[in-house]
Amino acid sequence: MSNRAPSLGIDIGATKTQGIVLDAHARVIADRVRPTEPGPDGVVATALAVGRECLSLAGLDVTDLGGVGIGIPGRVDHRTGAVSTAVNLGVDHLALGSVLAEELGAVVHVDNDVKATALGAADYLRTRDADLTYLNFGTGIASATLVGGRLIRGEGNLAGEVGHVPVDPSAGRCGCGQFGCIEVLAGGGRIADRLAATPFSLPGLLNSAEAGDQTAVTEALRIANGIATAVQLVVLAYGSDRVVLGGGVIRTAPGLVDLSRHLLAQRAEQSSFLASLDLPARVVVLPATYPLAAIGAALSGAGQRGQG
Amino acid sequence: MSNRAPSLGIDIGATKTQGIVLDAHARVIADRVRPTEPGPDGVVATALAVGRECLSLAGLDVTDLGGVGIGIPGRVDHRTGAVSTAVNLGVDHLALGSVLAEELGAVVHVDNDVKATALGAADYLRTRDADLTYLNFGTGIASATLVGGRLIRGEGNLAGEVGHVPVDPSAGRCGCGQFGCIEVLAGGGRIADRLAATPFSLPGLLNSAEAGDQTAVTEALRIANGIATAVQLVVLAYGSDRVVLGGGVIRTAPGLVDLSRHLLAQRAEQSSFLASLDLPARVVVLPATYPLAAIGAALSGAGQRGQG
Repeated sequence: MSNRAPSLGIDIGATKTQGIVLDAHARVIADRVRPTEPGPDGVVATALAVGRECLSLAGLDVTDLGGVGIGIPGRVDHRTGAVSTAVNLGVDHLALGSVLAEELGAVVHVDNDVKATALGAADYLRTRDADLTYLNFGTGIASATLVGGRLIRGEGNLAGEVGHVPVDPSAGRCGCGQFGCIEVLAGGGRIADRLAATPFSLPGLLNSAEAGDQTAVTEALRIANGIATAVQLVVLAYGSDRVVLGGGVIRTAPGLVDLSRHLLAQRAEQSSFLASLDLPARVVVLPATYPLAAIGAALSGAGQRGQG
Repeated sequence: MSNRAPSLGIDIGATKTQGIVLDAHARVIADRVRPTEPGPDGVVATALAVGRECLSLAGLDVTDLGGVGIGIPGRVDHRTGAVSTAVNLGVDHLALGSVLAEELGAVVHVDNDVKATALGAADYLRTRDADLTYLNFGTGIASATLVGGRLIRGEGNLAGEVGHVPVDPSAGRCGCGQFGCIEVLAGGGRIADRLAATPFSLPGLLNSAEAGDQTAVTEALRIANGIATAVQLVVLAYGSDRVVLGGGVIRTAPGLVDLSRHLLAQRAEQSSFLASLDLPARVVVLPATYPLAAIGAALSGAGQRGQG
């Protein structure tokens, strides 16, 4: 972990952009957050402002850096740094890597923010040879997996679209057109659609369920079953030792994590095979305040991780 | 592919054991098949006999080899060469790697036969940096995946247990104790159980379905839906460019492959996301007579592949 140049990592989100600088020992020595300005020009301006402020706070010049890494939602070609269909940022297409490289005068590595978060989580857990999946429950569901410490990308960076495996034909139609995808059960977009027809909001759902409201119980179990199935799927597919849960759904209703663990334990009572995997023990939640994606971006920018 | 020592590969199956020798250009220069004698001693004796006959046919001595690779069903620790719970071979536990290494006087790499087949399939398709999954529909269902040409193993070689993702709660109980696993739909064991209560056998099932028998139609669609879901799952999880289908179910009823492609095309009509993946085009079947597992074993024995 030591004897390498410092690196700058920037996590560009729909509402805020967070930058950090890692020193030679991968410790955070500067961090800065700004609201994200939308659109291609806004995204670039925000990233440049945050990055320059971080360098100033760290007392470094860009020439001191081993590299710069960016995490951003949407489809990312990590080889070219091109970003497309980052809908929540108002970006249809943006050659983010080359624009930032020119402005900063540095090598810039751009990756999807879910992949950056997986790298940050492995660093947080101090497992450099990690068999680890980060499962993100945002508006949609996506995952990023490290096997033996290396990111799985697949053809066209497709790997990790686990939200669109249909698992419950009766659960209704998914935005992708299929019926009963995991994302229908536990994706934030579809949860919000269903809750709009009830008196409940996601933050209060588990309390209402515990108070005995049957509609709330049904919905909480539906979401937790989707989370549990996603955990089971990634462990069976990738052999992940740890499954880190995150994203807006988990942040908004953290009690869903224990409910999902409970459902996984129930499944294990039916199945000695599942029991042998001890799925509840593999589920991990990391502090929501920790800048996993920015740190993961900095690590991959420094060429330390995720170049597989 | 050139300028390496020849290697010996042995695929130990429940009924037969197949050996091959690859030359310096990864061409098969000798092959030999024997019925597998059951039990730990029988398995070792069969493998030694086949291996020695292959070397004799190739005009080589064991000291000419760069390595020896073995593919075998069951749980395999590829680092130690230990095999456990190879039920169909009558093997509970066997230190296969060290026993064969001692007898042959060579370095022996042992791996699960599904993983060996994936390596052989990548070699057959001439895709050394393959994003490829081999899906095996035998008594149970298992898969092995190469990402960027490297085998995904996961913690304890768990990766690839995709048969035990529940996808249809109404489909009945799985041998693993859960309900509606993919293996319930398309695993050979459960197919045989269901067909035992009908006038049909698996080889004649598709003909009976085409002739309009509704029981046969229902069962053929159930199996093909399980295959289609498995294909979709591995493409979404791993980003596999090619999904090679094999195993007893596919060999016995090869028409299931086109039926599964047809169902995948139907799913794409509902979903532009699935349509963009062109799943039917990713499905590949290789000649059943080609010794994929023995070749894959030889390649990994030679240290060329799968040591990730």
